[in-house]
Amino acid sequence: MTRHIHHDLKVYGSIKLYAGTGSPELAQKISDYLGEPLCERDVIEFPNENLFVKLRSSVRGQDVYVIQTTSQPVHRNLMELLIMLQTLRLDSAARVTAVIPYLAYGRSDKKDQPRVPITARLVTDMIEIAGADRYMVIDPHAGQVQGFFSIPGDVLTAYHLITDYFMRQRTQMVEPVVVSVDLGFAKKGRNLAAALDAPMAFIEKRRSTNNATAEALTLIGTVAGKDVILVDDEVDTGGSICEAVNLVKKEGAREVYVAFVHAILSANAAERLASLPIRRIVTTDTVPIPPAKQAILADRLDILSVASLLGEVIRRAHEGRSVGEMFNE
Amino acid sequence: MTRHIHHDLKVYGSIKLYAGTGSPELAQKISDYLGEPLCERDVIEFPNENLFVKLRSSVRGQDVYVIQTTSQPVHRNLMELLIMLQTLRLDSAARVTAVIPYLAYGRSDKKDQPRVPITARLVTDMIEIAGADRYMVIDPHAGQVQGFFSIPGDVLTAYHLITDYFMRQRTQMVEPVVVSVDLGFAKKGRNLAAALDAPMAFIEKRRSTNNATAEALTLIGTVAGKDVILVDDEVDTGGSICEAVNLVKKEGAREVYVAFVHAILSANAAERLASLPIRRIVTTDTVPIPPAKQAILADRLDILSVASLLGEVIRRAHEGRSVGEMFNE
Amino acid sequence: MTRHIHHDLKVYGSIKLYAGTGSPELAQKISDYLGEPLCERDVIEFPNENLFVKLRSSVRGQDVYVIQTTSQPVHRNLMELLIMLQTLRLDSAARVTAVIPYLAYGRSDKKDQPRVPITARLVTDMIEIAGADRYMVIDPHAGQVQGFFSIPGDVLTAYHLITDYFMRQRTQMVEPVVVSVDLGFAKKGRNLAAALDAPMAFIEKRRSTNNATAEALTLIGTVAGKDVILVDDEVDTGGSICEAVNLVKKEGAREVYVAFVHAILSANAAERLASLPIRRIVTTDTVPIPPAKQAILADRLDILSVASLLGEVIRRAHEGRSVGEMFNE
Amino acid sequence: MTRHIHHDLKVYGSIKLYAGTGSPELAQKISDYLGEPLCERDVIEFPNENLFVKLRSSVRGQDVYVIQTTSQPVHRNLMELLIMLQTLRLDSAARVTAVIPYLAYGRSDKKDQPRVPITARLVTDMIEIAGADRYMVIDPHAGQVQGFFSIPGDVLTAYHLITDYFMRQRTQMVEPVVVSVDLGFAKKGRNLAAALDAPMAFIEKRRSTNNATAEALTLIGTVAGKDVILVDDEVDTGGSICEAVNLVKKEGAREVYVAFVHAILSANAAERLASLPIRRIVTTDTVPIPPAKQAILADRLDILSVASLLGEVIRRAHEGRSVGEMFNE
Amino acid sequence: MTRHIHHDLKVYGSIKLYAGTGSPELAQKISDYLGEPLCERDVIEFPNENLFVKLRSSVRGQDVYVIQTTSQPVHRNLMELLIMLQTLRLDSAARVTAVIPYLAYGRSDKKDQPRVPITARLVTDMIEIAGADRYMVIDPHAGQVQGFFSIPGDVLTAYHLITDYFMRQRTQMVEPVVVSVDLGFAKKGRNLAAALDAPMAFIEKRRSTNNATAEALTLIGTVAGKDVILVDDEVDTGGSICEAVNLVKKEGAREVYVAFVHAILSANAAERLASLPIRRIVTTDTVPIPPAKQAILADRLDILSVASLLGEVIRRAHEGRSVGEMFNE
Amino acid sequence: MTRHIHHDLKVYGSIKLYAGTGSPELAQKISDYLGEPLCERDVIEFPNENLFVKLRSSVRGQDVYVIQTTSQPVHRNLMELLIMLQTLRLDSAARVTAVIPYLAYGRSDKKDQPRVPITARLVTDMIEIAGADRYMVIDPHAGQVQGFFSIPGDVLTAYHLITDYFMRQRTQMVEPVVVSVDLGFAKKGRNLAAALDAPMAFIEKRRSTNNATAEALTLIGTVAGKDVILVDDEVDTGGSICEAVNLVKKEGAREVYVAFVHAILSANAAERLASLPIRRIVTTDTVPIPPAKQAILADRLDILSVASLLGEVIRRAHEGRSVGEMFNE
Repeated sequence: MTRHIHHDLKVYGSIKLYAGTGSPELAQKISDYLGEPLCERDVIEFPNENLFVKLRSSVRGQDVYVIQTTSQPVHRNLMELLIMLQTLRLDSAARVTAVIPYLAYGRSDKKDQPRVPITARLVTDMIEIAGADRYMVIDPHAGQVQGFFSIPGDVLTAYHLITDYFMRQRTQMVEPVVVSVDLGFAKKGRNLAAALDAPMAFIEKRRSTNNATAEALTLIGTVAGKDVILVDDEVDTGGSICEAVNLVKKEGAREVYVAFVHAILSANAAERLASLPIRRIVTTDTVPIPPAKQAILADRLDILSVASLLGEVIRRAHEGRSVGEMFNE
Repeated sequence: MTRHIHHDLKVYGSIKLYAGTGSPELAQKISDYLGEPLCERDVIEFPNENLFVKLRSSVRGQDVYVIQTTSQPVHRNLMELLIMLQTLRLDSAARVTAVIPYLAYGRSDKKDQPRVPITARLVTDMIEIAGADRYMVIDPHAGQVQGFFSIPGDVLTAYHLITDYFMRQRTQMVEPVVVSVDLGFAKKGRNLAAALDAPMAFIEKRRSTNNATAEALTLIGTVAGKDVILVDDEVDTGGSICEAVNLVKKEGAREVYVAFVHAILSANAAERLASLPIRRIVTTDTVPIPPAKQAILADRLDILSVASLLGEVIRRAHEGRSVGEMFNE
Repeated sequence: MTRHIHHDLKVYGSIKLYAGTGSPELAQKISDYLGEPLCERDVIEFPNENLFVKLRSSVRGQDVYVIQTTSQPVHRNLMELLIMLQTLRLDSAARVTAVIPYLAYGRSDKKDQPRVPITARLVTDMIEIAGADRYMVIDPHAGQVQGFFSIPGDVLTAYHLITDYFMRQRTQMVEPVVVSVDLGFAKKGRNLAAALDAPMAFIEKRRSTNNATAEALTLIGTVAGKDVILVDDEVDTGGSICEAVNLVKKEGAREVYVAFVHAILSANAAERLASLPIRRIVTTDTVPIPPAKQAILADRLDILSVASLLGEVIRRAHEGRSVGEMFNE
Repeated sequence: MTRHIHHDLKVYGSIKLYAGTGSPELAQKISDYLGEPLCERDVIEFPNENLFVKLRSSVRGQDVYVIQTTSQPVHRNLMELLIMLQTLRLDSAARVTAVIPYLAYGRSDKKDQPRVPITARLVTDMIEIAGADRYMVIDPHAGQVQGFFSIPGDVLTAYHLITDYFMRQRTQMVEPVVVSVDLGFAKKGRNLAAALDAPMAFIEKRRSTNNATAEALTLIGTVAGKDVILVDDEVDTGGSICEAVNLVKKEGAREVYVAFVHAILSANAAERLASLPIRRIVTTDTVPIPPAKQAILADRLDILSVASLLGEVIRRAHEGRSVGEMFNE
Repeated sequence: MTRHIHHDLKVYGSIKLYAGTGSPELAQKISDYLGEPLCERDVIEFPNENLFVKLRSSVRGQDVYVIQTTSQPVHRNLMELLIMLQTLRLDSAARVTAVIPYLAYGRSDKKDQPRVPITARLVTDMIEIAGADRYMVIDPHAGQVQGFFSIPGDVLTAYHLITDYFMRQRTQMVEPVVVSVDLGFAKKGRNLAAALDAPMAFIEKRRSTNNATAEALTLIGTVAGKDVILVDDEVDTGGSICEAVNLVKKEGAREVYVAFVHAILSANAAERLASLPIRRIVTTDTVPIPPAKQAILADRLDILSVASLLGEVIRRAHEGRSVGEMFNE
Repeated sequence: MTRHIHHDLKVYGSIKLYAGTGSPELAQKISDYLGEPLCERDVIEFPNENLFVKLRSSVRGQDVYVIQTTSQPVHRNLMELLIMLQTLRLDSAARVTAVIPYLAYGRSDKKDQPRVPITARLVTDMIEIAGADRYMVIDPHAGQVQGFFSIPGDVLTAYHLITDYFMRQRTQMVEPVVVSVDLGFAKKGRNLAAALDAPMAFIEKRRSTNNATAEALTLIGTVAGKDVILVDDEVDTGGSICEAVNLVKKEGAREVYVAFVHAILSANAAERLASLPIRRIVTTDTVPIPPAKQAILADRLDILSVASLLGEVIRRAHEGRSVGEMFNE
């Protein structure tokens, strides 16, 4: 029989949490969940825009997690993440995990026309070359982005949170139907519908044959007299979601709920959403929503926090325990 | 002004076409299209199953294209491709392009549950490590597989062929409607529908809540009295497609056409298809269909060849001309 | 003086043993030796031949050993190994060791003619890219295959087992002489002869000058009236070994023993061996011998198990103890 | 004797020039110098700040040069460069050269305190991973940055332009002395002084012992009654250069000239320079100086263009001719 | 709250110290400082000059430090280091750190003329490819060599030792002034001067305009009547330092001290130094000084040992504690 | 049909030959064979032993061959090769081929005991990291070294030259028998014997069982009254070959010829060979034999030049023609 070795895992020193400047509140909540403080570091922007990072204490041999979202300012946040990763690697951390609640450029994931980039792959390459040993992301645009990374990681989903939300609302809703705003999102929408035991419908967008720029929207499936849950992975300028709201309303929807994970809300997306007959807007804090935008939507906005999700996965990753178990998978 | 240099491109020697044993007829058609012979090589399988490849002539400094599909026998075909790539690289070819009409393991493209592989990435890694400088594939399950490769390549589609086929059938069809068999295929289905100026419908498959193995199919959209074109990227055992045929028939479809790119047709798929009320089965030769299976389906089977598509792309790749232009993109 | 740190090694969590489907009995014996169970995993082959692997429990931070031989079905076994390696890596195992009792393609280890592959290097590259951190192999055709790997590993030999076997037989043997069947194996044969304190002879095979396919065999050294131990690393179709038996018999050998590590026994090798005047056939279980073939050879076949060898090396690798010590080296 | 092969080089197709949005005027001048047009491409910034690039024509097999400076907006310009490089690589360009007149983050070239990044190495890694085969930079902060790249490149200097400028001014100057503003720049300053056959002096900056933030400046060497040429590689906020002007004036300098390659001029640097008794400010167009800032300095500003330098090096790189020859080296 | 895990770090087994043959005395002193023995290993040079290394005990899972300087015989010492690194990696050490007190080829750190190597980068590449996970070097010629490595490491300085030495001498010195022998060393010289609160001067070397090989030396700053500390990073043939001594003496220096870290002392450097009016020569043991050379300089030579510096950094690296703290940084 | 492109290959500019200092005469002969001059370059050794290389003309876009043997001084020659490779790569050569007539450390090609290096793999890694795109070597100790390289190359043999030599001697020889000095060389010896249509014998060396250092030699096969050709790949100190000569003489050999490719001849090997009853010593110029050693052996030494072999392979590699054809393979 084998000589006994203690079976508790001690591979990577202690958890060390670092936060970029992209999502400080979420980072603090994760820290609170774990009961582990955010480590002190300086992040300085010089007048020439160059960023500088200095860790206040050594991470030699430690198990480090850098929490940084890559929403706006996108390129600054991304570069800050990369510099932090390199700094931690050069300080001889035992393992560095990039915790990226929202991964920028996720929609540039294939060449659907000639002579264009696959920027999502460029971004994953940059994260690896900077020094990440592992990564965590939430609901990337396509799950296939896992295959862009050479390093292992945890691709998590916030749809459990959104499902739970609507399960709680269920009794107050009339014949809910899940409507996928984008055909590329059809499969994820189906999962939400199945969890809610609700039927589905789709919005198909098609370029008009005699007018290159105009697009025609069609609803496939029925929503008349039903409560509609419009779902998508992210809302950017809000253009698609606004058209979708109008379409389902025109098709006779009763109440309209809008659910999406990543609240980019660029340009005047908040104002556009506010002007529509939406009952509730359900999203998460993978991207920080500025107070001004929250104010515009406040009475109808529900922000579900991914902090305990990320916190629990960090804890399990550190302790070498299964993450899949969290979801009974 | 710059000293003049001849602007015709001569970078990579001559085209040298090599064929694996996976799809010899398609390879011959490509050779015919290009007017370039298939180069001679020995492929030997020893009694211990080990494969051996020997090139009959040198490829030093040449621009080599290896045509090998990776359908059944999958692992033998894949290994044969890899050995050919390595042999060509070690013989100092200037550039080696893996031309893979059907890329195996394309559906294993993400971890949609914990503790499973992303075999598509493994396969792309193997192709690169063996020595491919470039690749060509036709309609991989997800377009994102482009981002799995670190090398450049051409991801081509045979839907232009299928679209053209139905455009020619158009006048004989009654109110054609395109029905996507799988929600993950919704977007590609939409493109076909848009090209045909036809409406769409979807089949949603959902695991029954009180019986884990049973699945319930729902048609979203309407097909009653219309000619249905069922589309998918590949047909393996034919299970989904057969259910789909039955469902649209039950929902009142007039004629049913089935269209898919990759004719895997494993197990008794041919027999199952033959037993159904399908008017035409439209597919391509990315995967060779054995004569016996063709016989079963013969009177209703239309096989569109991808030979001129691949041949033209090889020519343009060799000459340094745009591939996008071929599709007015 | 340095601050004290516990010196027992706890780097890589617990031993986790996984078995491929290539050699389940050997894997079970290794498990028994170590007193560590084989971890549960699903290996599924879909109708399209694609393999799918799912681990039943998490290996995060663990020290994992995948036991998989790569004998027939060669390419399926190899692909299964690679997929398991990737799956374990993506599940964040701390260290993954590929334990490969028999490494396929070992004889394709150099270009001894132009325009051929070095498939052994391709195979080692594939093992590395899939995610192995270390490897273990037994008696590869050429020891130099160690230099094909970039990762560290243990190249083990089963000749200690074979030597011990003949040491026990020694008293019953008359003037034993070790005869190397292949000149490329001369040095390993010498080691066995030296351990038994027996003389050597060689069989030289030479292509006849006036007939390209015929080969002439010559015995160099003397065997008349002696007990001959014919040695080689593997027996495939048995052609060489059968010629060798006939030759030494013709040269007056008394009893003939045949010893080899890897019992490939493809085609009708078992029948051929059974028909010859061989006293004992000594081999190992690096390659599983199907019951039918064992039956053919049963009364003269001795299968020495490498299970305790591999088990002990796994234990020492896990505990950070010397493997060389096992052999008093 | 060897069979004759034409010795003119035709390796990499034609020159294709692409310009990022960071320095369009310089790119146009290079294009004019070479008589080669800038290729058309779209660079779009979406409302979510994500950048998108599309080439208007194919670059398959061509010899491509991307001209992009990485001054402000630093991170956007850098990302745009990286995306262009990847796009060109994925479109199968034969060779891609990143032409970067000013390389951001050059001063972060070593860890001169613990737990800080080496961002210059991160940037060079990013350029390589994105797809550059070669690079060109002008006067990086430290010449050692060449060793950060794994790819070959041309590190060029604009000091020849500055030397020529002062050679033309020579007759009007009284006993010119070259003063290095920063000790790290001492060696490059010496080269300029040697070319002008002028003596040198140095400014030493030292942190005051009894006040951590105050810094004491000392002039080492003599400037009294002489015309001073203050030299540095870049001017950012202008702090050091302004202190230097005041110091040499206090030490009795007659006229003061300021010369530097990279005109970052962040914050109110232009205003600060304008307020000082400087006769001429000599710089280059590696960084575009906005018209407003030019206006502030206009009567004393001389901008030397690096366009013909870069153009000539591009031409020679394309034609396979020596670049060293340009400088009689 | 997170499940508790012991926070003392046990990642990399025990410290194992190995010494090359390049600097055995320094290695022994480090061993003494740490209270850890040097591990036994054989280093054999065959008659054909090939080196062979054999470890006497296993390093599986251990934290190994190889101490080897790369002074003369430079290429043999370098190769010995590389072979030891590979041997340790192949024996499955958990981590291998190359401790290189003096890194050869450090001055070949950029292409300051066309068509020359950057040998320092070649050397760092070789150290990485051989198997080092980390490195430690003392005062490389340019700090930027850190950016040549892809692996993390500790770049240490012996100037703290030299500063302390002169602080102790301070009271006996008359108006000490630090003089930098080489302009490339100006910044490091400034740091020493600042620590001693002494002024600086510089020696500028310039090629004479009418005689290509002659060089003119100028002193910038004043030394008359003062005690001069001439500083440089290494002394090779002693040419520059001898010229410098003569120059400062001619300019009226009182006593002259010479300080440098790396005592290469090739050719007749020791004799040259011995013949000059130098009061003390202060250096370190990063390079072993042969007894014969020590004898020549003995009465004026002070060798400061870097053993406790390296020992302490090894200890802290092993224990995962901050190295920066050692210097109050 | 495909648009016509000129089929003569012009990929890599012109041949540029560079010689290291390891084998200048062989390099000159290759140059003469090809009618291409050796390019001028400076190779300087500084007093601190560091080497410096400067190319006298640009190699941008050229097809460069560096001829450098790695015999004594081994490490200096190896480093010189590596520095030249890097210099050529950094100067943007289109392709760099390392032409290494004798590859040092070839015998360290596997771990035949624990805790030793595989230095041959280290050397191949160094050659690749320095910048070689291809390599050429002659008769490496084991052919498997091809699999150590990731880059393609030509592994050539000088046995054709040796075979031709003995074919010419054939008529004067009495019953020639080829005797392999080392069992590891048995297979190559057989090839020579087969080409000469001569029988074989072997020398087996075995450590004596009761005396660890003594070795017993046995001849297997018969040589009495015959002319013996002793063959090996290299002769280092000559120990084995001298024992072999004595043994075959004792066993009754008539004349003894000694043939080997690489004449290392270290220590007093030449003297030892000179003292033995050898008729002719046949070797090549892969390693330069110093005049003094040639003098010792002169009347019995035949040096066959590999210059035309290497020259012809370089020519064919450059022109993209088959090398295998040279040998009717």
